[in-house]
Amino acid sequence: MQYQVDLNSDIGESYGAYTIGQDEEVMEFITSANIACGYHAGDHNIIHRTVEMAIDNDVAIGAHPGLQDLIGFGRRPMQISPEEVYQLTIYQIGAVQAFAQVKGYKLHHVKPHGALYNMAVKDAAIAKAIAQAVYDYNSNLILFGLANSELIRMGKEVGLHVANEVFADRTYQPDGSLTPRISSNAMIHDTDEAVERVIRMVKDNKVTAIDGTDVSIIADTICVHGDGPKSLEFSRQLSRELKNQGISIKKVGIHHG
Amino acid sequence: MQYQVDLNSDIGESYGAYTIGQDEEVMEFITSANIACGYHAGDHNIIHRTVEMAIDNDVAIGAHPGLQDLIGFGRRPMQISPEEVYQLTIYQIGAVQAFAQVKGYKLHHVKPHGALYNMAVKDAAIAKAIAQAVYDYNSNLILFGLANSELIRMGKEVGLHVANEVFADRTYQPDGSLTPRISSNAMIHDTDEAVERVIRMVKDNKVTAIDGTDVSIIADTICVHGDGPKSLEFSRQLSRELKNQGISIKKVGIHHG
Amino acid sequence: MQYQVDLNSDIGESYGAYTIGQDEEVMEFITSANIACGYHAGDHNIIHRTVEMAIDNDVAIGAHPGLQDLIGFGRRPMQISPEEVYQLTIYQIGAVQAFAQVKGYKLHHVKPHGALYNMAVKDAAIAKAIAQAVYDYNSNLILFGLANSELIRMGKEVGLHVANEVFADRTYQPDGSLTPRISSNAMIHDTDEAVERVIRMVKDNKVTAIDGTDVSIIADTICVHGDGPKSLEFSRQLSRELKNQGISIKKVGIHHG
Amino acid sequence: MQYQVDLNSDIGESYGAYTIGQDEEVMEFITSANIACGYHAGDHNIIHRTVEMAIDNDVAIGAHPGLQDLIGFGRRPMQISPEEVYQLTIYQIGAVQAFAQVKGYKLHHVKPHGALYNMAVKDAAIAKAIAQAVYDYNSNLILFGLANSELIRMGKEVGLHVANEVFADRTYQPDGSLTPRISSNAMIHDTDEAVERVIRMVKDNKVTAIDGTDVSIIADTICVHGDGPKSLEFSRQLSRELKNQGISIKKVGIHHG
Repeated sequence: MQYQVDLNSDIGESYGAYTIGQDEEVMEFITSANIACGYHAGDHNIIHRTVEMAIDNDVAIGAHPGLQDLIGFGRRPMQISPEEVYQLTIYQIGAVQAFAQVKGYKLHHVKPHGALYNMAVKDAAIAKAIAQAVYDYNSNLILFGLANSELIRMGKEVGLHVANEVFADRTYQPDGSLTPRISSNAMIHDTDEAVERVIRMVKDNKVTAIDGTDVSIIADTICVHGDGPKSLEFSRQLSRELKNQGISIKKVGIHHG
Repeated sequence: MQYQVDLNSDIGESYGAYTIGQDEEVMEFITSANIACGYHAGDHNIIHRTVEMAIDNDVAIGAHPGLQDLIGFGRRPMQISPEEVYQLTIYQIGAVQAFAQVKGYKLHHVKPHGALYNMAVKDAAIAKAIAQAVYDYNSNLILFGLANSELIRMGKEVGLHVANEVFADRTYQPDGSLTPRISSNAMIHDTDEAVERVIRMVKDNKVTAIDGTDVSIIADTICVHGDGPKSLEFSRQLSRELKNQGISIKKVGIHHG
Repeated sequence: MQYQVDLNSDIGESYGAYTIGQDEEVMEFITSANIACGYHAGDHNIIHRTVEMAIDNDVAIGAHPGLQDLIGFGRRPMQISPEEVYQLTIYQIGAVQAFAQVKGYKLHHVKPHGALYNMAVKDAAIAKAIAQAVYDYNSNLILFGLANSELIRMGKEVGLHVANEVFADRTYQPDGSLTPRISSNAMIHDTDEAVERVIRMVKDNKVTAIDGTDVSIIADTICVHGDGPKSLEFSRQLSRELKNQGISIKKVGIHHG
Repeated sequence: MQYQVDLNSDIGESYGAYTIGQDEEVMEFITSANIACGYHAGDHNIIHRTVEMAIDNDVAIGAHPGLQDLIGFGRRPMQISPEEVYQLTIYQIGAVQAFAQVKGYKLHHVKPHGALYNMAVKDAAIAKAIAQAVYDYNSNLILFGLANSELIRMGKEVGLHVANEVFADRTYQPDGSLTPRISSNAMIHDTDEAVERVIRMVKDNKVTAIDGTDVSIIADTICVHGDGPKSLEFSRQLSRELKNQGISIKKVGIHHG
C-alpha cells in the first residue's frame, strides 16, 4: 500500500517592517502554506510576496484567518459571536484569494489560526460558522482542522472536504484531543520519538495517548514550524524520515493511483 | 435620443459601534454602491450588511478601497509607492468580492476613496497601479474615476471599462479638473443650478468652468451623498429632475436599445 | 443630615470621523467624566477636546481605560494576563493625564471600561492589576468600580480612595451584584421607579434585590448615559429629582462640612 | 578643554509578538533611549520593559513619538495638520512618561520619529507644534532634533532646552542639512571616516559638506543604531574612539565642571 501525507505550515506572518519566521526555508519542504490574512498577522504586501513564494515552490495556497488582534497575534481567546466569525472568515479568505487570482492561481484550503483554531476544536457554533463561511465562499476549498475536532465534524456536515491535522511534537489525550500546553507532558521533546509517532499516525491511524491507550487518529496533514533553527531542522528530519518510510509528501486532495 | 446616467454613493462607512451615513435611505435612489473595504472605514460585519442591502435594492456592488488610515478616514494623502497601492487595492477588492460571492453575486465596479482617489487624479503611477490591480483581479470590473483624470486615462490604457464621474455640487477648472475645495468658489450651493449643470453634463457633455468657458466632460455617473438630511434631500431632488428630463437612471454598463 | 452623590458618564468615545454620544449635553449635568483613552474608543484629538469640555463645565477629568479592541468597542471579554492589564492601564492613564496636564489640570479618577470593568467585578487578579496600576501611577487618584465588586475591594486593599458606582436602570441580585443583561429582569424600565431606587441607595444605602430582599449598597456615584434622547432626558430627570430630595450632586472626594 | 557628547538610539520598537532591534545590546553603550510610544511601533508591554531596561543601564528615558502608521513604521510622510501633530505628541509623551513615573523616574527628552522627524526638519508649523507640545507638557524636557533644523529653531523659540543631533553615517549639504537618502552620496560607508567626522563635529563644531566646504554644526548627541550586527559593531567602535579622544559620553543636560 502507498501512503501519503501533507506538510503544512503557518506562513506570511510578518507585518510591515516586522519579520517573523523563515518563510523561504520552510517553503522548500512543505506542501501547504497557511497564509496570514492581515487580521492577526500579515499585510497586503506580505500576502502578495508569500503567495508568489508558494507558487514558485509548488506549495498549495491556503488562507489562515484569525481574530482581529494584531498585538496578541490572534492567540488570545475572545468572546465573539458565530455570526462575526462567519464574516471575518469570509473577509480574510477573499483577501488572500485575490492575491492568488491575480497570478492565475486558486485558493486551495483554509485553516483557522491560533485562538480561532482552538475555539473551533470544542465550540460547535464557532466551528460551524467557519465551515459554513468556507463552504459558502467556495465549496471546493479544503478545510484544515485538528483531527477529531468539532471543526472537522462541522466541515464534513456542511459538505466540505476536510484535512485532519496532527502535531508531531504534541501528546494526545485518551479522547483524541491534544493535551493542553499548560500540562507538563504536553510536548514531545525527543525528535526521534516524534517522528515515529507521526509515521504510526500516517500508516496505522493510531497514536498512543498519555495514559498508554491507543487512540484512532487520521493524519492527512502535519503541522510544522519555521520559527527557529531547531524547528526548521526537525521539520527537515521529519520530511526525510517520512520519505525513507515510503510515505509520499503531497498536497491534500491530490491522490495517486 | 435616449439619455442615461448612473447615481453612485460611498456607502458602508460605519465601523464597529460607530455609524456614519444613512445607508438605507441612500440605497433607495442610487444605482451603484461604493462599499468601504475595512481600511479607511467599514468592517467585515458592515460590508456583509451593506452588500445585502445593495442586493435587496438592486444596486450595483462596488469596492471602495482606501488608504489604511482609519483615524483619518482615508482622507489624508500619504507618500505611498505604486507597488503598495497595487497590493492594497487587490486586498480590498478581494475582501468585498467575497461578500458578494457568498450571496451568489459579483462585484461590478471599483472606485478608490478619498486621498487615494485624489492622488489618482493627477499621479499617473498611482492611477496605473489602481487600474492594473483592478484589471489583474478581474478585467470585467468597471473602474470609476473623476472625468478627465489620470485614473480614467490609465483605466482605458490597461483595457478596463471606465465610468467618468462628475460632481453636482462642485465647480470645474478650464482644464476639466475640479476646483480644489480650499477655493472659495469650489462649491455650488444653489441646488437648482447644480441640477441644471448635471443635466447639461449628461445631455451635452459640457460644463461651464469658473472662467466662463465651456469644458468637455463625460458624465457616466454622478456622485451623491447621504451624510445629512440636506444632502439626502438634494439627491432625491436630483433623481426626480433627471427623470423629468427624460434621463434614465441606470447602472453603468447596462445599455438599452 | 446632608446627602451627596456624584453623576458620572462615559464620554469622549468618538473616533476620527466617527461621532458617538452627545458629550456637550451630558457635560451640563454630570460631575465626573470618564474619558476614553484611545484603545476601545477615543483618539488624541477627541481626548483633547473632551478634556477642554470637562474643564469648561467644571467636571472631574477621569481616564476610562479599555481593552485594545476598537472594532468591538472594548465590550468583548478576552483572555488577558493581569500583567498586561497593568501595562495597558498605565499607558491609557498616562495618555489622558497628559491632556489634563497641558491645561494645568490633574486627572481625578479612573474607571475601567466595558469588558475590562466587567472582568474586574469578579476576577480578583484583573481587579488587583487595575488597582495597582492606578496606585503606582498616582496614589491620589480615585478608583471607580461597581459597588460590592472585587475592583472596589482591591482598590481599598492597595490603598486607593474608591467610589462605589451604582446603576439607576439595572436590577441587583441578592448578593449585591448586577443582574446580567441577558436576564429578562435585568433592566428597570420605569423611570420613576429608577429614580426612587437611586434615592434610596444614596440615603439608606439599600436596594431591593430581584428576590425582594434588601441588599446593602453604597452609592458614591451614579452612571448616566448620553447615547440617545431618552437616556439624556432620564439623566436630567434624575438630576432634578436628586436635588429636590436634598441630595447635592458633587464630584467624589469633595466633601462638605 | 573637556568635550562630551551623548549617544542616542531609537529603541523599544518591537510590537506584540514581533521583535525588532537588539535593545539589550544597544542599552550597554548609549546614554539616551528614544522609546517608541505605540503609534508607529512599541506597545504597552514593550514600553514597560524598555523603560526598565533604560533604568537598569542608567540610560536617559526619552519618548519617541511618531505618526499613527504601524504598517509603515511611521516612515511615510502624510498630510497632517499642526493641531493634530500637537495632540499626537501630547498623547505619546504622556503614555511613555507614565511608565517612567510608576518606577519613580522621569522622562528626560523627546525625539520625534521617522516621517515626523523629517517633516519637522523643514516644516516650521509642524516643528512648532511638536516643540509647543513638549513645552506645554513639561518645560524641563529636552527636545532632540536634527542640527540646523526648524525643529531645533522652534524648540529654542518656545523656550526648551534642545539637543542637536548628528549622524555618523550620513553626509551633509552646504546648508547644513542631511543629503537625502536617495542621493548616491548620502551615506558614509567607511567606518574610520565616519568616526573621524563625528570627532571633528564634537570638537570643532564643523563637518565637511559634499561640496568640500566646511559647515558649522553642533553635535550634542549622535544617533546610533542596533538593527544589525554591523551597526552594533560600528556603534561600539565609535564609542571606544570617542573615549580614546578624550570625549566623555554623557547624557545631554548633565554638564561637568
